[in-house]
Amino acid sequence: MASGEDDLIARYFRPLATDPGALGLVDDAALLKSSGDDLVVTTDAIVEGVHFLADDPPDTIARKALRVNLSDLAAKGAVPAGFVLTLALHEAKEQWLAPFARALGEDAAAFNCPVLGGDTVSTPGPVMISITAFGHVPPGRMVRRTAAKPGDRVAVTGTIGDAALGLRVLQGQGDGLDTLTRDVLIQRYRVPQPRNALAIAIRDHASAAMDVSDGLAGDLTKLCAASGVSAAIHLADIPLSPAVRALIADGSSSIETPVSGGDDYEILCTVPGNRWESFVAAAHRAGVPVSPIGSIEAGTAAPRFLDVAGQPVVLKRLSYSHF
Amino acid sequence: MASGEDDLIARYFRPLATDPGALGLVDDAALLKSSGDDLVVTTDAIVEGVHFLADDPPDTIARKALRVNLSDLAAKGAVPAGFVLTLALHEAKEQWLAPFARALGEDAAAFNCPVLGGDTVSTPGPVMISITAFGHVPPGRMVRRTAAKPGDRVAVTGTIGDAALGLRVLQGQGDGLDTLTRDVLIQRYRVPQPRNALAIAIRDHASAAMDVSDGLAGDLTKLCAASGVSAAIHLADIPLSPAVRALIADGSSSIETPVSGGDDYEILCTVPGNRWESFVAAAHRAGVPVSPIGSIEAGTAAPRFLDVAGQPVVLKRLSYSHF
Repeated sequence: MASGEDDLIARYFRPLATDPGALGLVDDAALLKSSGDDLVVTTDAIVEGVHFLADDPPDTIARKALRVNLSDLAAKGAVPAGFVLTLALHEAKEQWLAPFARALGEDAAAFNCPVLGGDTVSTPGPVMISITAFGHVPPGRMVRRTAAKPGDRVAVTGTIGDAALGLRVLQGQGDGLDTLTRDVLIQRYRVPQPRNALAIAIRDHASAAMDVSDGLAGDLTKLCAASGVSAAIHLADIPLSPAVRALIADGSSSIETPVSGGDDYEILCTVPGNRWESFVAAAHRAGVPVSPIGSIEAGTAAPRFLDVAGQPVVLKRLSYSHF
Repeated sequence: MASGEDDLIARYFRPLATDPGALGLVDDAALLKSSGDDLVVTTDAIVEGVHFLADDPPDTIARKALRVNLSDLAAKGAVPAGFVLTLALHEAKEQWLAPFARALGEDAAAFNCPVLGGDTVSTPGPVMISITAFGHVPPGRMVRRTAAKPGDRVAVTGTIGDAALGLRVLQGQGDGLDTLTRDVLIQRYRVPQPRNALAIAIRDHASAAMDVSDGLAGDLTKLCAASGVSAAIHLADIPLSPAVRALIADGSSSIETPVSGGDDYEILCTVPGNRWESFVAAAHRAGVPVSPIGSIEAGTAAPRFLDVAGQPVVLKRLSYSHF
């Protein structure tokens, strides 16, 4: 006599719920046992037509939904502890749910972040996935946005702007690109690569950190505002992939799109000068590329973005906004 | 240079975020400090057109979104610790957001369950609010669905079915009702009254508990299945409000609508016989009415619902299902 909703949970999600805290998904709630650590809590939702496209493959949607949250945990120096999800669907289709749940389970295992519970609801509107993820940090050790200090180096992981240009390719731009380049950019939009491998190094070295989700320029502006500081960033030092470099070189993109485009899910952090060498070494051991892009300055002016001649470049738009 | 989204958060939600764990809503994540307690985690979403109606007042939508989660915490014997919310909106309208946020803040204060963080996203579809709420229980003391035992009494709080009939009124039924009765039923649909006052009594007495959200009959069936037991319920003992009694008496409703209708947000629990008197006394002190409605039996048959002659009544539908 189980309902359709219970059948759906039993069929697709209970097999993923192997963590004891999930209670087999047969209870009203999940259980996070006391560990003595502080718990970092982050929540991020993705909406069809806004954060992903209606014809994106369901497996990439699942991965993106979880990974945008894992990225927040990484930036806070937290080790994943698990997640709960709300899945709003207009219909329960096997050919969508099966690959969605399989990919979610694969990522939960790969990032050691088990599913603990959730809610499945029907909606007459677009598909929406809201995930709340939990991470452990030793008491008092969560990395905040608020403690960047003048003189700190500003660094980012990986490369910036691939996802923003991948979205443009999906929207019909970039005809001149070869197939491989197009695929690389699209994949960066669809499936973020959160930097959880760097979480401990961030916790041990960074004075402040956040993940880059809405655009590097805007996110840095937020970090500086939270810390009560300013920054000088060298545009030429912002790490760009060969694909993005080529698009800028041939005039298909300005520097503005990658720097303000969003969906990077890289980590932006500030590191005191005397911790820099140790941070670079720790990042190297973690296998995560980090690049210095400028430095924190005193004052409350908006961060400056400088060209190779040291002249400020005015960006028309800093980041993506929903409203 | 703050974005519209940041403005929205700053204007409507930052004033609510007075708990230190919210970090002023200026970070990527919230912080739940280690307390030594286990953490109960529940997540429930409500969708416009499914869980609430498009023209429901925004203050009642806010209260329902939070209270359906508070109800889960109460049923698990947990004391609220805070919540995060995802708010998906098609547009950011002052006349909707202001009363929504104000009511959310009022309920957060009233139930001592502070907002800790969230995500605000745009959607081309219906409004959706997904809340993940946290509650504390002493280690190992979360009340599960799985430990009901033959001989335990089955009890529910408050009255059952008001919300289901309130929804029918909103859908145009119940013309014969007087205005006050209609308003009482509608209010029960729109604004649940979660039984958090009973949480400690549940924790100290119940062998199993859950909240009644999808319909008493179906929810009891789930509890029995989780515990590997059956039950015999006396339909005449199910507590009904005067409004629902009147609707049944005049033939406007069968017993089936209240018993399978959902949205009650009362607590269903099982209490060992030797704990019953103490439970009733504790509930009385908490100011929460509790009614015995039957008893747990051995076996794995579906629970039986008995009429006044002791004859089983077959319910056509046990509960609401999304799919």
